[in-house]
Amino acid sequence: MKKLMMVVGVSLLLSTGGVAQEKKIFTIDDLIPGGATYNEHLPENIFGLQWWGDICIKPEIDKIVSVDPTHKMKETTIVTLEQINSALEKNKLGKIYHFYSVTFPFTNKKVLKIEMPKESVFYDFGLQRIIEIIHLKEKAANTDFCKENSSIAYSIDNNLYFADANGQNIQITNEPEGVVCGQSVHRNEFGITKGTFWSPKGNFLAFYRMDERMVADYPFVDIDTRIATVKPGKYPMAGMTSHEVTIGVYNKTTGKTIYLDAGNPKDRYFTNISWSPDEKSIYFIELNRDQNHSQLFRYNVASGKKEKMLIEESHPKYVEPQYPILFLKGDPTKFIYQSQRDGFNHLYLYSIEGKLIKQLTKGKWLVKEILGFDEKGENVYISSTEASPLEVQIYKVNIKTGKCMRITQAAGTHATLLSFSGKYAIDRYSSTNVSRNIDLIDINKVKSYNILTASDPYKEYKMPIIEMGTIKADDGVTDLYYRLIKPVDFDPSKKYPTVVYVYGGPHAQVVSNTWLGGARGWEIYMASRGYVMFSVDNRGSENRGREFEQVTFRQLGVIESKDQMKGVEFLKSLPYVDANRMGVHGWSFGGFMTTNLMLRYPDVFKAAVAGGPVIDWSYYEVMYGERYMDTPQTNPEGYKECNMKLKAGNLKGHLLVVIGGIDPTCVPQHTYSFIKACIEANTYPDLFVYPGHQHGVVGKDRVHLSNKMTQYFDQYLK
Amino acid sequence: MKKLMMVVGVSLLLSTGGVAQEKKIFTIDDLIPGGATYNEHLPENIFGLQWWGDICIKPEIDKIVSVDPTHKMKETTIVTLEQINSALEKNKLGKIYHFYSVTFPFTNKKVLKIEMPKESVFYDFGLQRIIEIIHLKEKAANTDFCKENSSIAYSIDNNLYFADANGQNIQITNEPEGVVCGQSVHRNEFGITKGTFWSPKGNFLAFYRMDERMVADYPFVDIDTRIATVKPGKYPMAGMTSHEVTIGVYNKTTGKTIYLDAGNPKDRYFTNISWSPDEKSIYFIELNRDQNHSQLFRYNVASGKKEKMLIEESHPKYVEPQYPILFLKGDPTKFIYQSQRDGFNHLYLYSIEGKLIKQLTKGKWLVKEILGFDEKGENVYISSTEASPLEVQIYKVNIKTGKCMRITQAAGTHATLLSFSGKYAIDRYSSTNVSRNIDLIDINKVKSYNILTASDPYKEYKMPIIEMGTIKADDGVTDLYYRLIKPVDFDPSKKYPTVVYVYGGPHAQVVSNTWLGGARGWEIYMASRGYVMFSVDNRGSENRGREFEQVTFRQLGVIESKDQMKGVEFLKSLPYVDANRMGVHGWSFGGFMTTNLMLRYPDVFKAAVAGGPVIDWSYYEVMYGERYMDTPQTNPEGYKECNMKLKAGNLKGHLLVVIGGIDPTCVPQHTYSFIKACIEANTYPDLFVYPGHQHGVVGKDRVHLSNKMTQYFDQYLK
Repeated sequence: MKKLMMVVGVSLLLSTGGVAQEKKIFTIDDLIPGGATYNEHLPENIFGLQWWGDICIKPEIDKIVSVDPTHKMKETTIVTLEQINSALEKNKLGKIYHFYSVTFPFTNKKVLKIEMPKESVFYDFGLQRIIEIIHLKEKAANTDFCKENSSIAYSIDNNLYFADANGQNIQITNEPEGVVCGQSVHRNEFGITKGTFWSPKGNFLAFYRMDERMVADYPFVDIDTRIATVKPGKYPMAGMTSHEVTIGVYNKTTGKTIYLDAGNPKDRYFTNISWSPDEKSIYFIELNRDQNHSQLFRYNVASGKKEKMLIEESHPKYVEPQYPILFLKGDPTKFIYQSQRDGFNHLYLYSIEGKLIKQLTKGKWLVKEILGFDEKGENVYISSTEASPLEVQIYKVNIKTGKCMRITQAAGTHATLLSFSGKYAIDRYSSTNVSRNIDLIDINKVKSYNILTASDPYKEYKMPIIEMGTIKADDGVTDLYYRLIKPVDFDPSKKYPTVVYVYGGPHAQVVSNTWLGGARGWEIYMASRGYVMFSVDNRGSENRGREFEQVTFRQLGVIESKDQMKGVEFLKSLPYVDANRMGVHGWSFGGFMTTNLMLRYPDVFKAAVAGGPVIDWSYYEVMYGERYMDTPQTNPEGYKECNMKLKAGNLKGHLLVVIGGIDPTCVPQHTYSFIKACIEANTYPDLFVYPGHQHGVVGKDRVHLSNKMTQYFDQYLK
Repeated sequence: MKKLMMVVGVSLLLSTGGVAQEKKIFTIDDLIPGGATYNEHLPENIFGLQWWGDICIKPEIDKIVSVDPTHKMKETTIVTLEQINSALEKNKLGKIYHFYSVTFPFTNKKVLKIEMPKESVFYDFGLQRIIEIIHLKEKAANTDFCKENSSIAYSIDNNLYFADANGQNIQITNEPEGVVCGQSVHRNEFGITKGTFWSPKGNFLAFYRMDERMVADYPFVDIDTRIATVKPGKYPMAGMTSHEVTIGVYNKTTGKTIYLDAGNPKDRYFTNISWSPDEKSIYFIELNRDQNHSQLFRYNVASGKKEKMLIEESHPKYVEPQYPILFLKGDPTKFIYQSQRDGFNHLYLYSIEGKLIKQLTKGKWLVKEILGFDEKGENVYISSTEASPLEVQIYKVNIKTGKCMRITQAAGTHATLLSFSGKYAIDRYSSTNVSRNIDLIDINKVKSYNILTASDPYKEYKMPIIEMGTIKADDGVTDLYYRLIKPVDFDPSKKYPTVVYVYGGPHAQVVSNTWLGGARGWEIYMASRGYVMFSVDNRGSENRGREFEQVTFRQLGVIESKDQMKGVEFLKSLPYVDANRMGVHGWSFGGFMTTNLMLRYPDVFKAAVAGGPVIDWSYYEVMYGERYMDTPQTNPEGYKECNMKLKAGNLKGHLLVVIGGIDPTCVPQHTYSFIKACIEANTYPDLFVYPGHQHGVVGKDRVHLSNKMTQYFDQYLK
């Protein structure tokens, strides 16, 4: 039941002959972020590529070049690093070493914005001088610039401030410790990535206020102080008391703040804040704590009162509002609302009174993102999985006709930035064989101008062969996508040790049409050391629609593991896979999956490395945990079935559990309680801790981790 | 340079022939405390053997028998369990199931004392009824009974109380949290094992008061609560602010408490409290924080004022007062003072004014304990190492003549309990070949009556051969004692893997003339699985005198490791030791030593298990840490030389570090900071944590630990 989809490294297949000797063998430092030589093998890139109106801005080492798509891609140097630094130094503002933090916020002004540690500096590259400076206070974080009023909202510790170029620097909130203002809330599980929302004209600042004082602390221990100290972190666990969120609106003219009066219960999620174009209304989606009922509300900004409930959705499992509504360009009476109500995330056009006008997109694929509108607001640009669940392509959707036109053509995964008018786009993509490509697209002419095609960063190395295809899920019907990496110098008559890399949780996909098929450096490294590496995206994972994901509801790990076992079945059908030398590895949900596979199918894998695993969902936080598992009180059987501690006695193979010492996501209690359960059950897992690391082991230490994992698999599988 | 001293298991050597098949092979459960079958193999014992005046009390299963040495060891049943329980139940006090907590405090009254959870019950076995009950409050701990006034001093949380049989139940102190009264202070490093001291006639209660409020907390994390919680523990680390101790005296008649006025500095140690026989004075030894200057002071109980400094000692390294002064029986003008001033702990007779009368004991051996006086107070009984540093024998020292007579004869290690008059003694001993022997000794007649000779508890098992002997220390002069355990079914023509078990720190000895030469069950287990097991007590360890111990001052681990390497040299000289398959294991100071050996001599040991190790002495507590290392401020080179983190890059072999998750002695910061240092140095230790365990892994989980260690050595040495 497999279908060979694509093969990477064919040229290298050819090179296994006479010239093979010239190819280098990877070291771990070449392939792991943080490795000494890792940066030497990154695909070429252009950092800071962006739009200034319809002019493309292309930073180079020592100057910024503009590329004008309206004038045959004419390139002009607009400013040099030397010029900027001379101006900065004249104002005693230090200097910059690159253009990564330079932006062009004003469509029609020759002004660029430079982020310095404590200032935002506005430099006029026509006049070649600094025209404005906004000074921030010490410890400023979460900065949010509003180009309409040239102000910056920011936070210091738990309170909210704003500063402008006139030297105003005002503290908006004055809350005690435990009440956080102007920062992202609800642990980012609801499409929330920030805590401040300027109104379209810059007269108001809406912001989140989160009261965490009633939430239990998790005691993280800092071992780097003279004597270890506890650094408590608020962590509401599934079924426990959660924080309470409200939305404040600061009126820049009056200096007053009102809080939107959402009433009771307080135990809800307030997500996807958006402003009406006239600044008179704020819209957001309210989700009940059970996460099975969402309501889009309009609030009156002047009174703070609820005006109208516009759209509501419910589902016996859960609903997942992830995107704010978006008003049409030039028509403030209509907005686009996104919903998975037909099983896939699609766009719906609504009137301002909440009346459905029509479904804009439809099909067994999903909209990933709205990129913007064209100049007249007749078309909306989206990215979607219509071409393939493994790809992201860009489409233009006519709002009137619903006609959908594909913009990007090259197979792969595109990330696209529209110009101000929507006529042009900077299109970056990678695909299994292309490490990075950047085009400048003239959308209407369907023409593209290549800015960069990165060469293969690994061309000097012996590469493994990467194959992708599908197998059937445990239901016998659903296609699952896999990636199979054959060892370097592959000999089909040999038997190879094999490691499955798994994630398996919602909102993520491991196999995709991106560079190397989405494989990570460690997989390439293992393949270069003689391992077959395999991954399959089981049901429950991303980009396949609601039913595919929600089949795991209230019993995380059960069906996912069954699907992974179909992958194992497939592997066992391959003559070169040594079924007696199989391993599995994953991190986070993948660590949970690894533990599941070791304990639910104890005779399959001889060795495993579970990183930062969930062990017992009752230790996970309310937002993610209750969405997928409900609460320990309402779903005791599910929590029991998915509790790895209760299966600790099943452990047969070698299982190394690795955690960051202060992991704030899967708190250490998961792993230590699992170790305790294994001790009680007389089983023998291994354990390693990366002190001071959080949910991922990053930086230089990631190389150590990768070596540690490699050694572990070598020990038992080689 | 070795000398074969003794061989255990000779009979088993013979049994390797035809009858060997009948012998059983040990399982781990047979040999590890907490193992399912461990208790079946404990040497026979008699619990609760004690004196009632000069009558020996011998509890049996359902009755207590008295043995009268003055009447030809006549045995009489004095009470049955049934009788006691009938009386207890009549008073609604529950029942007892054994006699372990029954004592006979009154020499001349037919009364025994029974400890019930909340009561002390006095039962008259002449009248066969309960005559007194002392009721304690909930949570009573640290009980201290005074037979002179039939009162019990006890603590609840951090405060001190007392209760008597008249129903008085009085709170003596009323201190806030962080001030602890009536409990042992200074972390037990100064011979302090309790916090209350009744005066000889029972009119006063002296007690320790320790103010810990200025001491930093170590954050221990309890993972067994719904969400993990921090349980802070006061832990003054070397060089940091320590607690302040004072001594209070409660006057039972007036109900008033005064505190002895010791003046400044507050940063001192107050140790070895004793009362004058007339209750008018309290003596204790003051030790400066640097621990190189001790002063014996007399305080006036009525005024609380310092009256006189009687004896002082100083030493460029450290002085270690471990024993309170002891007034002679019948002569309150003289007392015995113990000191290492001539290099070994000996007894000195002093006048009450602090004038040295004479040295009572002398020699290159040390007094372990004063057991008491004979009837007229002419002789003092001591235990000492005069016979051998590996043994403890009992001696009678004539105070006038200094004549010393050995009482116990059997080679081995004796623990002896004198009768009231000092005429008789209960003598328990074990030796390499004797698991337990209990005699009743008539001291003057030098006659003994055997109460128990335990049979070999392992007689059904294949036993390894245990050899003991000496090698020269790294100085080429000093004898060090070793224990060598040859594998079961030893074949001298084979090459065996070998594991060194090490402790190596002060105040402990691993090799001794006790049952199995001091070997622990795990060593026997490993030998029964085909390992050579070896231990040697390096310089720095116990029972060899001051110079032997103090050679390690300010550089713990350096000379100790050199001596251990002499052990390795010896092992390598044995034809049956495979030098390529050597391992090392130790716990606590032994974990520190294990880590030292792996990092100072990286090519010697292929595998190691370091349990609860010290890694950096600056993380250890002030009392022990500063005694041997001074402070990080005054001995920076020493702290650097002994800091395992700075040697983390040397690691070559396999090192498993194991800790209890809430180890309050070697706090987890040691191990986690070492792991971090290894990660930074790109070396690869292994780690395991026993959640919820403290400095030792005890109970059933000790079996898991022993298996874990065994697996680790098997993996790399077998």
